[in-house]
Amino acid sequence: MNYEVTISDDFWNRYRGLVKHRMIPYQWDVLNDAADITIEKERDDASIPNEKSHAIENFKIAAKRAQGEHYGWVFQDSDVYKWLEAAAYTLCYEWDAKLKETADEVVDLISAAQEEDGYLNTYFSIMEPGRRYKRLGESHELYCAGHFLEAAVAYHQAAGSDKVLETAVKLADHICSTFGEGNGQIRGVDGHEEIEIGLMRLYHLTGNEKYMDTASFFLRERGKDPGFFMRQNREDGGRPLIAGLDRFPLKYYQMHRPVLEQDTAEGHAVRLVYLSTALADLAAETGNEELAGTCRKIWRNIVDKRMYITGGIGSTVHGESFTLDHDLPNDTMYCETCASVGLIFFARQMLMIEASSEYADVMERALYNTVLAGAALDGRHFFYVNPLEAVPDKSAKDPGKSHVKTVRPQWLGCACCPPNLARLIASLDKYIYTVRKDEILVNLFIGSELKLRDAGKDIVIRQECRYPRSGTILFYVTNKGGDVLDLKIRIASWSTVHTGAVDNVEAEICAQKGYWKIGVPAGEHTIAFNMDIDPKRWYSDPRVSENIGKAAIARGPFVYCAESIDNGKDLHCLLLPKNAELDHEWREELLEGVGIIKARGKRLIDADSSGALYRGSKDLRTEECEITMIPYYAWANRGENEMRVWLNETEGEGKP
Amino acid sequence: MNYEVTISDDFWNRYRGLVKHRMIPYQWDVLNDAADITIEKERDDASIPNEKSHAIENFKIAAKRAQGEHYGWVFQDSDVYKWLEAAAYTLCYEWDAKLKETADEVVDLISAAQEEDGYLNTYFSIMEPGRRYKRLGESHELYCAGHFLEAAVAYHQAAGSDKVLETAVKLADHICSTFGEGNGQIRGVDGHEEIEIGLMRLYHLTGNEKYMDTASFFLRERGKDPGFFMRQNREDGGRPLIAGLDRFPLKYYQMHRPVLEQDTAEGHAVRLVYLSTALADLAAETGNEELAGTCRKIWRNIVDKRMYITGGIGSTVHGESFTLDHDLPNDTMYCETCASVGLIFFARQMLMIEASSEYADVMERALYNTVLAGAALDGRHFFYVNPLEAVPDKSAKDPGKSHVKTVRPQWLGCACCPPNLARLIASLDKYIYTVRKDEILVNLFIGSELKLRDAGKDIVIRQECRYPRSGTILFYVTNKGGDVLDLKIRIASWSTVHTGAVDNVEAEICAQKGYWKIGVPAGEHTIAFNMDIDPKRWYSDPRVSENIGKAAIARGPFVYCAESIDNGKDLHCLLLPKNAELDHEWREELLEGVGIIKARGKRLIDADSSGALYRGSKDLRTEECEITMIPYYAWANRGENEMRVWLNETEGEGKP
Repeated sequence: MNYEVTISDDFWNRYRGLVKHRMIPYQWDVLNDAADITIEKERDDASIPNEKSHAIENFKIAAKRAQGEHYGWVFQDSDVYKWLEAAAYTLCYEWDAKLKETADEVVDLISAAQEEDGYLNTYFSIMEPGRRYKRLGESHELYCAGHFLEAAVAYHQAAGSDKVLETAVKLADHICSTFGEGNGQIRGVDGHEEIEIGLMRLYHLTGNEKYMDTASFFLRERGKDPGFFMRQNREDGGRPLIAGLDRFPLKYYQMHRPVLEQDTAEGHAVRLVYLSTALADLAAETGNEELAGTCRKIWRNIVDKRMYITGGIGSTVHGESFTLDHDLPNDTMYCETCASVGLIFFARQMLMIEASSEYADVMERALYNTVLAGAALDGRHFFYVNPLEAVPDKSAKDPGKSHVKTVRPQWLGCACCPPNLARLIASLDKYIYTVRKDEILVNLFIGSELKLRDAGKDIVIRQECRYPRSGTILFYVTNKGGDVLDLKIRIASWSTVHTGAVDNVEAEICAQKGYWKIGVPAGEHTIAFNMDIDPKRWYSDPRVSENIGKAAIARGPFVYCAESIDNGKDLHCLLLPKNAELDHEWREELLEGVGIIKARGKRLIDADSSGALYRGSKDLRTEECEITMIPYYAWANRGENEMRVWLNETEGEGKP
Repeated sequence: MNYEVTISDDFWNRYRGLVKHRMIPYQWDVLNDAADITIEKERDDASIPNEKSHAIENFKIAAKRAQGEHYGWVFQDSDVYKWLEAAAYTLCYEWDAKLKETADEVVDLISAAQEEDGYLNTYFSIMEPGRRYKRLGESHELYCAGHFLEAAVAYHQAAGSDKVLETAVKLADHICSTFGEGNGQIRGVDGHEEIEIGLMRLYHLTGNEKYMDTASFFLRERGKDPGFFMRQNREDGGRPLIAGLDRFPLKYYQMHRPVLEQDTAEGHAVRLVYLSTALADLAAETGNEELAGTCRKIWRNIVDKRMYITGGIGSTVHGESFTLDHDLPNDTMYCETCASVGLIFFARQMLMIEASSEYADVMERALYNTVLAGAALDGRHFFYVNPLEAVPDKSAKDPGKSHVKTVRPQWLGCACCPPNLARLIASLDKYIYTVRKDEILVNLFIGSELKLRDAGKDIVIRQECRYPRSGTILFYVTNKGGDVLDLKIRIASWSTVHTGAVDNVEAEICAQKGYWKIGVPAGEHTIAFNMDIDPKRWYSDPRVSENIGKAAIARGPFVYCAESIDNGKDLHCLLLPKNAELDHEWREELLEGVGIIKARGKRLIDADSSGALYRGSKDLRTEECEITMIPYYAWANRGENEMRVWLNETEGEGKP
């Protein structure tokens, strides 16, 4: 169904302006090694390349427009593709002829780097053409290809570029002929899922089922032949492309069993959600219940047992991976920005399978917390890892926390996150509504206008709100088609009291899988929706051992955190009394405008003078204090300091 | 001062019997690859050799009595030396002609493996003679030598072997001539301290100051030339002897600054305490206040800021190292058995510098908790890592906890701990009392008899107790010398109420640096001492973030823990009410006899039926339960299960 969405929201337009005017030019400079910045290793590992990006230069060398060697990760190309994709989306909300010119040049360069038969990868073309597809567990060749297909579809749609589409089709055709179950084809998959998403997008654009078929092949083949990567590595016999990757277990690549038999979220978190995104897309497109069932099982496992309250996923730095149910350490986790971006992709595709608000709930949770936290307010510093508890001294001196940075770096050796975040925010218009065959879902409360004129429908929905500052949202619906429009407004899971009115008449809100369903007849109508957005405390399932005795505070979609700049150091000594009132206060001047939350609390202090590390209870006292919290996404924007989401609770009074 | 101590204590004699009759024969079989066992890697690392020990075979090959290659760590020899040292100590309390014969054969074999010039190391003699002393940061050549010197002194003293002493002197003379500041000497140190301890012991035995001088050289040289190891590695240019070791920071080896300028406990925990042990020995021997001051600073930092309540040290698996002050995670720490053994060595030497009971307190804490936990009650299974919180599923599925084993392995790829534990327990008689020039300290409450006849003194002290089951200790002192004996009995730091009587007359107990000082005149006297050994709660310095809201239970020297076999799974859901009574109950039949502690507690249960990971407070309830705790050292002796030392506390009632 063809429709377009225009965003008019202040909160998000600031971010979208940041992507357009700061991130895109900044990242372009970085990719061209023209930015005067420090590139940090994402963790303490000698093998991480962090001297420069070299990503554009790699293409120039592959295109024979420059001399030299490839530099960077074997998947360095994907940084360029994600930049192109993000740039394409920005053109849709702010046309920029100069940016289009630059993007066209990039497309021309990519095309020139493509080999005669359609193959496209600068590392192998420059350095090791003989090892093409010989070591798929590590090579990321199809991963990069998938990112190019995504960028190509986006750029073609945004700027009408034929060249980018031709290049993409040539690459996709090459892949479709090279991989499969036929004679002479490679029956294998890439170590990092992404080609599946790219092929599905090319299918959606072109309608050519070949691309969907090959996506389906990759999805169904994964895990059927668990020894594939090891066998390829042995046959290849050469130096690994990524040192140490072959030590990871099969789960790391979701290769431990056939995908349709997987029912838990395992391994590298980004890979798992990219896999799931493509799987859900295929399930929705084909109506295949078996595929949908697998998606639901993986979703349930993530959301019920392996997801942080911030929408972060990946409990360990080892393999940037999931671990086990209810294992959610707050200070050693990974919670990669990309993983939450991918979780949002997955959620969006699940909404195409079924209209259940939990997908949109998670989308919102990940978006307003982990994804936003991935970038500084200045749009030029980025987190890879998004902790729920950070202490600068521990990150500096405990090697087990070397990956938990407390200041956003300017760029990272593995630069997957910054452009991933940029492409999500730049395409946010695609997430607010889900236009299904018979209904329109409102997933996110973002001031915007949806225009749909297709298949006999002619609908305009204008959403107005100051969300999440306020929980009141107004919808002005113009239904010029003849049929009743089934509009479903998400009832956020955190709202316990909500009211609604249609054309100023109070309406009863009956939830249908978490949505308020309204039949909107032809004509112009006003719908008012109000959710209670008061600050609330949240507790973990008690099986999460790390959070016993602790509460997290959230207001609407925002999870809150305490920073030491507001609360003094040793945030673990803050005690939030169980009955303390939580007062919300808007602060226009702070952190580009945030609502802070204050509570009367206590601080545990040391009344022991002996210096003993272990002592009796009499040596501990508490004193009154005020606890100040800010939205999690805004942390680490006021210099290096401690941060904590889950606060220790205590009994007793806490009223002002 | 010459004296001897005989142990008559039931608790410890069981352990000493275990060492003599189980560990020594078992470890002998392992070292000879004659035991049908599974050798586990101490953590998930492909480079750890765990096919076999091969330690004796290495000596046979070096001695040209067998053919083959060296197998195992570059420091595999030290396993044999520590076995010999432990065997020697057992001969002092239980003579065994057959064991002596075996030990003599080992000495003969070691001597045959020694090179003409005194050099002794099977790895280099067999595999790379040309790299001798070329890569001291990794080679452990002097580390192994130190262990041989220790073993030689012990075996010479136990069995009068001249051959072992000759071999040791030849080795020590070779080292003293090879290393130093003179022309043609190597001005450098070993990556792993130990030679310093060995040389000091040889000095104490022989009185030859050359050995002390070279120990002093090694101690003072450390850290003066921080680039030494890296420079050697570059000059060597060959393959590393231990993969990845060169990535560790200088602190790992205590090479970051000259030892006398070090004031915090840094780096690999075992190395640090071995360094400190030798430093304290040298300080006491020479009366050098500067050396003693450095020892005190390092001690203060460990004990006040970096030591677990169990006497474990080393907060991270990365480099088996210290991290930073008050960083004491309970589930990812290292707390290596060897590190607590070394901490006891350090404490013992500190008591030679000054009679302050805190050294003995720590000695007792480490001994009764981490060291004892290092071995199973059967004497044939060993922990390397001693966690304060263990969940089998997390150890299995979270790679960040792969080192936290929940069942003691039969043997380990790096087998430093089992013989280290054996040599400590077998020489426990050397720790009970400290005989200083003018006073005798009673450090440990262990049924025993001390006989001292030297320098005009003729003293017998007989200690009788059922400690730690009971806090009452009796001393029968016979002072046949003319002078008043200054006897100092340690007042354990955990005792808040203590009484004493001398010859049945109640005495006032004035603590002098933590000791009850009694002037015992000539004749026979009886001293009764009683400490309150009721179970108590302990709290951490609030700067330890992991332990906020938690209490640990201890009774006398024993720290307690809860196991899931007694309490059900999810031990983090047990809540110990702040006012719950702690009832101690002796259980003769359990775990070779232990006192258990019971309390009325609560268990947090999940009252949420939605399956939501995050929810409001109403979804959490508690139910009454009984909490059962056992001494920490006895955990993991009843199959694989969860264990936890620090229990969550809660307000409210907890009385039966």
